Order: sequence, then C-alpha cells, then structure tokens
Amino acid sequence: MSIATTPPSGFRDFLPAQVAARHDAIETISRVYRSFGFQRVATSAVEDSSVLLGKGGGENDKLIFKILKRGEALDRAIAEKKDLSDLGLRFDLTLPLARYYSKYGSSLPHPFKAFNIGPVWRAERAQKGRYREFTQCDVDIIGSDSWGAEVEVITAICAVFSSLGVDHPTVLLNDRALIYAVLDRAGVPADKRIPACVILDKLDKVERAKVLEDLSAEVGVGPAQALEKIMMAETPDLNALASASCEAVTRLQSILGALKAGSKRPDRFVLAPSLMRGFDYYTGPVFEFRHPSLSGSLGGGGRYDNLTENFGTPHTPACGGSIGFERLMLILEEAGKADGLGAPDAVMTIFSDELRSRALEVAAALRGKGLSVDVFPGAAKLKQQFKYADQKKAGYALVIGPDEAARGVVQVKALASGEEQAMTVEEACARIAARA
Amino acid sequence: MSIATTPPSGFRDFLPAQVAARHDAIETISRVYRSFGFQRVATSAVEDSSVLLGKGGGENDKLIFKILKRGEALDRAIAEKKDLSDLGLRFDLTLPLARYYSKYGSSLPHPFKAFNIGPVWRAERAQKGRYREFTQCDVDIIGSDSWGAEVEVITAICAVFSSLGVDHPTVLLNDRALIYAVLDRAGVPADKRIPACVILDKLDKVERAKVLEDLSAEVGVGPAQALEKIMMAETPDLNALASASCEAVTRLQSILGALKAGSKRPDRFVLAPSLMRGFDYYTGPVFEFRHPSLSGSLGGGGRYDNLTENFGTPHTPACGGSIGFERLMLILEEAGKADGLGAPDAVMTIFSDELRSRALEVAAALRGKGLSVDVFPGAAKLKQQFKYADQKKAGYALVIGPDEAARGVVQVKALASGEEQAMTVEEACARIAARA
Repeated sequence: MSIATTPPSGFRDFLPAQVAARHDAIETISRVYRSFGFQRVATSAVEDSSVLLGKGGGENDKLIFKILKRGEALDRAIAEKKDLSDLGLRFDLTLPLARYYSKYGSSLPHPFKAFNIGPVWRAERAQKGRYREFTQCDVDIIGSDSWGAEVEVITAICAVFSSLGVDHPTVLLNDRALIYAVLDRAGVPADKRIPACVILDKLDKVERAKVLEDLSAEVGVGPAQALEKIMMAETPDLNALASASCEAVTRLQSILGALKAGSKRPDRFVLAPSLMRGFDYYTGPVFEFRHPSLSGSLGGGGRYDNLTENFGTPHTPACGGSIGFERLMLILEEAGKADGLGAPDAVMTIFSDELRSRALEVAAALRGKGLSVDVFPGAAKLKQQFKYADQKKAGYALVIGPDEAARGVVQVKALASGEEQAMTVEEACARIAARA
Repeated sequence: MSIATTPPSGFRDFLPAQVAARHDAIETISRVYRSFGFQRVATSAVEDSSVLLGKGGGENDKLIFKILKRGEALDRAIAEKKDLSDLGLRFDLTLPLARYYSKYGSSLPHPFKAFNIGPVWRAERAQKGRYREFTQCDVDIIGSDSWGAEVEVITAICAVFSSLGVDHPTVLLNDRALIYAVLDRAGVPADKRIPACVILDKLDKVERAKVLEDLSAEVGVGPAQALEKIMMAETPDLNALASASCEAVTRLQSILGALKAGSKRPDRFVLAPSLMRGFDYYTGPVFEFRHPSLSGSLGGGGRYDNLTENFGTPHTPACGGSIGFERLMLILEEAGKADGLGAPDAVMTIFSDELRSRALEVAAALRGKGLSVDVFPGAAKLKQQFKYADQKKAGYALVIGPDEAARGVVQVKALASGEEQAMTVEEACARIAARA
C-alpha cells in the first residue's frame, strides 16, 4: 500500500510557475516597503499557547492548530486530564509583532516601521479560496500617534499595487471614534453599539432595506433613521459628521488631504462613514482597499493603540495595514502577470560524456554574463534534450558536438523558430541576451 | 499579570538586520540555482502524519511536532484512546519533495531540477546552535541516473558559496556502493556493514586508534586492518579501491574530473573513502562540503534512487544536496558580511503638518529615482527626527521648512559629518545616490 500524495485538506503545494509568481510578488512588496524605510521582521511560526490565547483565552481557541506536548509532559497531561498542548501555530502576524515589540522595542528605532511577510495557519473549515495555510503581508508603524503614520502606511500599500501593475484600488477611510460618536448622536445606547455595528457591517452583502429593518429592530426606528441619514448617505455629510466628532473628522480630512495631494488618482480616496473593519480591535482610523475584480477587500488596516497591552508594555500607539496576499495573487494570475516566469535563457545539451567539460565551461561563461543556463544532466539523445528545453520554456538550446568543439563554436538553436546557427561563445551570449 | 515575550525554547525571532542578512543570502542562493535552470518548488508546512511517519513509522516519530486533532475527532480520539494527532510539521524538505514529485511528476520537465528553501521543525532538545525551527536549502535533480547530475548539483552549490563571498569549501566525495564493496573485500559480513559504518563515521570526532579498536571488536582484527589500509589511507589507493568496485571508482573519477575541469580550485575536490553521510538513505555517490571555520560540515548530499518508493511511484533515480543554512549564516556573520544591510538612503523629516505634503512629494520623487526614503511619521522636534535617522543608520536626513518650501529646495544633512546644504531635488538625488 502506498501513502497518499495529496497535501492535507486546506493546505497547498505550488508548481514552479506559481512559486516564481508568488516569490516575485513578495520581492516587489519587500522592495517597495524597504524604499519607504520599513524594516522586515521575522518571528517563529510556533508560539506558546499563552501568547496565542492571550489573557481572554477562548476567542481564538478554535482558530489555532495546537501542537501536542511531547514525552513525559504528554503522558502527565493525559493522566491528569490537563492541557494536551503547550504550543501552537501563529494565526496572524499581529500578535507575534506585539510580542516582538514588547521584547525588543527598546533597542529598535523609535518609531519602529516594520513589515512582516509569512505564512499563518488557521484551523478553519477549508473552502474555495479559503485555506488553512496562507501568506500575510503586514506593514506597521509602532510608537507614533501622528496621523502621518496612516498616510505612510496607506501610501506604501498603494505603491505596492502600483509596482505590481494592479489598478489603483479604491481606498475607503473611516474612524472608530467617529462611528461611536455618530451612534451616540443618533441615540444608540452604549450597550447596543456592537450589535448596531455588526448590522451596519453587512451593507456590502445585504440589501439596504434589510439592514434598515434589522437596525430598527435592534436600536429603534428613530435611531435607525438617523443612522441611515448620516452613515449611508450617497455623499458623506461632513457637517453632520463633524457635529458628532469634530476631532475625528478633522483627522480623517488631514489623512485624506495628504493622500490625495500625493496621488495621481485623488478620486480613489473616499470617506466611508459605514466602514467597520471588525469590532474590538481598532481604536482610531480604519481603512480598506477595494478592487473592481474582487467582491470583498484587497486589504485594510487601522490604528490599534492597544497593541502591546497583553505583554505589560505601557500604552503603545500603533497603526498598520495588510494586503490580502492570496487575493492579490488571484488578480495577478487573472491579469496574466504570473506567466512565463522562471524559464532559463538557454538549455545546454550534453552531446557525449567526453564533451561534457567543454559544455560545462561554455555554460559557466554564459552564466558569468548574467544568463541562466540549464545544463541537461545526462548525455541522452539530442531529441530528448530538445524536448526538455521545450518543457523548460527555454529560448535556446545549445549543442557542442565534436565539430563545434574543434572549431571553438557553439550551435545555437532558437526553439520558437527551429533556426540553428553555429557561432562563437561571445556571439551566442549576445544573441541569447538580446531575447532574454 | 502579563504574558511572556520570549519565543518558545529552540525557536527564534530575528532583528531587522538579521532578517535582511538572511533574506539577502536566500535571494543569492535562489538566483544562483535559477541560473543553473533549477526551479523552486514549495509545499505545505503541515503534512499528514502518514506521510511524515512513512511505512516504517517509528524512526521519525520523536522528531515530529504533532498537531492535535480538532473538535469531535479529538473527543473521539481521547475517548477511544486512539492517535491524538492527524497532522504534523515537516522535519525536512526531502520527504515533501518525494510526495510532490509522486503527485506532479508527470506534468513537470523530465528530468526535474528543483530547489526548495524553507523552514523545517524538529522536536529535539534545543541547544547551542541547534534549533527546533531552522531553514533548509535543498537542490535536487530527479529522473536522471547520469553522474552529470552529481556534477551539476555540486557545481551549483559551489557557485552559491562563491556568490556569497565564502571561501571555496573542500568537497569530499565517496560512493555508497564503493563503501560496501570495500567492506565485502575486507571480509566484513553483510550483517556487520551498518555497525562498521557507524564506527568509521566517527573518524572526524574520535581518535583513529579508538576507531580501530572498536572496529576490531566489531568485525575482527583482520578485516579492521584491511579497512584501515583502504579507507583511512592518507592518499586514497585507487588501485585497491578499483579492485573492490571498478564501476564505482570510475564513476567517482568521472565526477571528480568534471568538477576539477570546471573549477578554479581543482585541489578542493577530493576522494574520501571513509565519508559516510548517514546509513540507510543514500544509494550511490555521496558528498560533503567542509569549511575551515566550521568543525562539522557546511552541507552535503548524494544519490538516493529510492526517493519516491513510499508513494508507489516506480524506481526514480534522484540526486540532491543541501546547504547548512544556519551554519552558512554563522560564517557570513563572522566575516562581517551581514552588516549595515537594510538601512534607508535618507530619512525625510516632517517640519510641520502644513509642510507634510511637500515633504511627501519630494520623498516620492526620490523613491522614483530608486532611492529608499524613510518618512518620519509625525511632526516631532527635529532633534528627535535626526536621532531617528541615526537609529535607522540612514546616510542623510532631509528637511523642508517654510524657507526651503518657498525656494523649492531641500536641506540635505549628511549624518556622518553633520554637514548641511540646501539644494534642488535633482541635486539632492545625485548627492544621495553617490553614497548609496
């Protein structure tokens, strides 16, 4: 009996072309973030259960892939009916960043501009487009309470999309403080805030009439109508919003102003008074990136000034965003921007074992000029080696037989046209580089 | 009570300079492997327990970080005293590659030249220099039984070391078939092969006299003396070796010949008749990279024609090698090749919120010219912003106050000398680029 070759449900393998496309995207993201002065951090994939569960425990419990205790500790845990697990896989990059900053913050630049790209794991039911192992790309500024931090994070993320050739997304902005002020002003009692936000958050997916009906049932008809007028208006009524929280509106206007001034697409930055982005995490401005070819968001973020509180570090202002990497890859694949990557410039065939050294010498010379040259390992039939060159999507196949070796030349075969010509190594280099 | 900020024992966080150094090394490795026509593959971090344990089970059991079953499956497992775990973290990259090739091989180029770089996890006791999460870099050719595959893998790994500025390692070569032939010829019975190899493998760590003593006790004095003469000779006796296995010696000589012919350091490739590289894995040539500043090896590999047998795929010839990435990073750090990485070219200060848009505009213009420009988020005191620029190890701090904004210039402060000068954005770009 043989063992199954499929990865576990919700986990994926990637074929070489996919790996190349994902790698290139990650390299572009890294390069852009670095060009803004963000520094990449890295933490372990595995965290202590206490870190993952936090003080509250419960909430994240079902998300976590838990690691079984080992050796005697496991035997003891089974016998005493205690926790069977002491470690778990991280389910996001924010909690590890909070731990990281609490530990190393005093030796890091202040403020600390960080980015982190890596896999996270969630023990959720796998479904189309939802994986149990996926890549997150976070970018954060820790230690600044200036609205300039939001501008910097959003600008950097927009620069990533631009560098990847993705259409400029629509950037929606709101402020958690503004939401609460508007709810207050509409007469929603404090204990109804979260239920009201949960209903309003469905505006994207549910008909407006249904949202209003649910809202009326939850907070009363009067407050629901007031909320409709302020939060669901076609064009946001700045005066109405400002009368709820002048401070929050001024801050949002500053952020929007700086983003519009620095962009070729100022129309793409909009105030969205009903944008929620989760319910207990953010403490100030929130933002979300939308792209016409996706139904949901392409990323988002916000201010979370409570980042490090679980780790006993004093109040730390922080603001961060993240790109939905798996969704980004969907867009790049659909746009055909993930094709033809990773092919070698040429395949060097091996005519015979006796002539291998000359072939290796020429391959090394071409690599020295910056070309990628794939040497076929065995002296198989040339037909088979040409087939391999096709499979690798190489531009050229190179042959050095006894005649070529004696004359100091190389036979260069263009695989698209089938055209062949003997030439010196220098000429071959120029020919291949011209296409590469 | 606050939660601990230290990663679990044996796991590591990396500070930004370390991340940059590790990232640069991985990028160099990838670039070199790609230039040889190797294609990067990627598999999931998590595998089914059946894949990790293989047919035999047992052996790897203690190495694996096992993932607890979830929900009802866990309750059932506890009640019925069955396996508590269904998944585990991969402990190497070879087993996943075998699964990958068994599943996708028919749609991949033939032969398939693959590389894989990523973390693996081992539930071993953590100790100095031994981690429970570490990076492996594997490079493999699957589907070729030519000795050209060995030449290609070893040449590519040597090219990696050269591109990283590491001294050319000594490359030791041997062949599993030769070892067994020599043992046979010395009169070691088949059932004593593995114990004899285990003893001979200690030649690096244990005195030669002790090795001989143990060997005599295990296989008898006569065979031990015969082995000493052939396997432990100062200079390998090719005739003696060839009389044991002419085929294996011819193959090793072909590999050595091609490596020497293609290298500027032919002296660094040596036949090492006592090199073992593990006991049940490899089936043909084996090799190991040694570096003067390390006591152990810097990497190694060999031929393992049984790669895919657990997955029901017919006999697949394969040959691969790997670099000891954590040891490589030690060498790079000691050589100071991991310093000063990831610093931005300049920090743009924010004189005031009113002048922020102009500062952002100039920063964007400089980034457009390929420079990395780190914008300070808030309009803090300039002294604090200069301190930040020092912390980031930036070359320059840029200031745009009301006077500079009015004149369309930028104040450029060289942080090493403290020298300051107002200049146009174009001049600033040239100045910063000259140092960058």
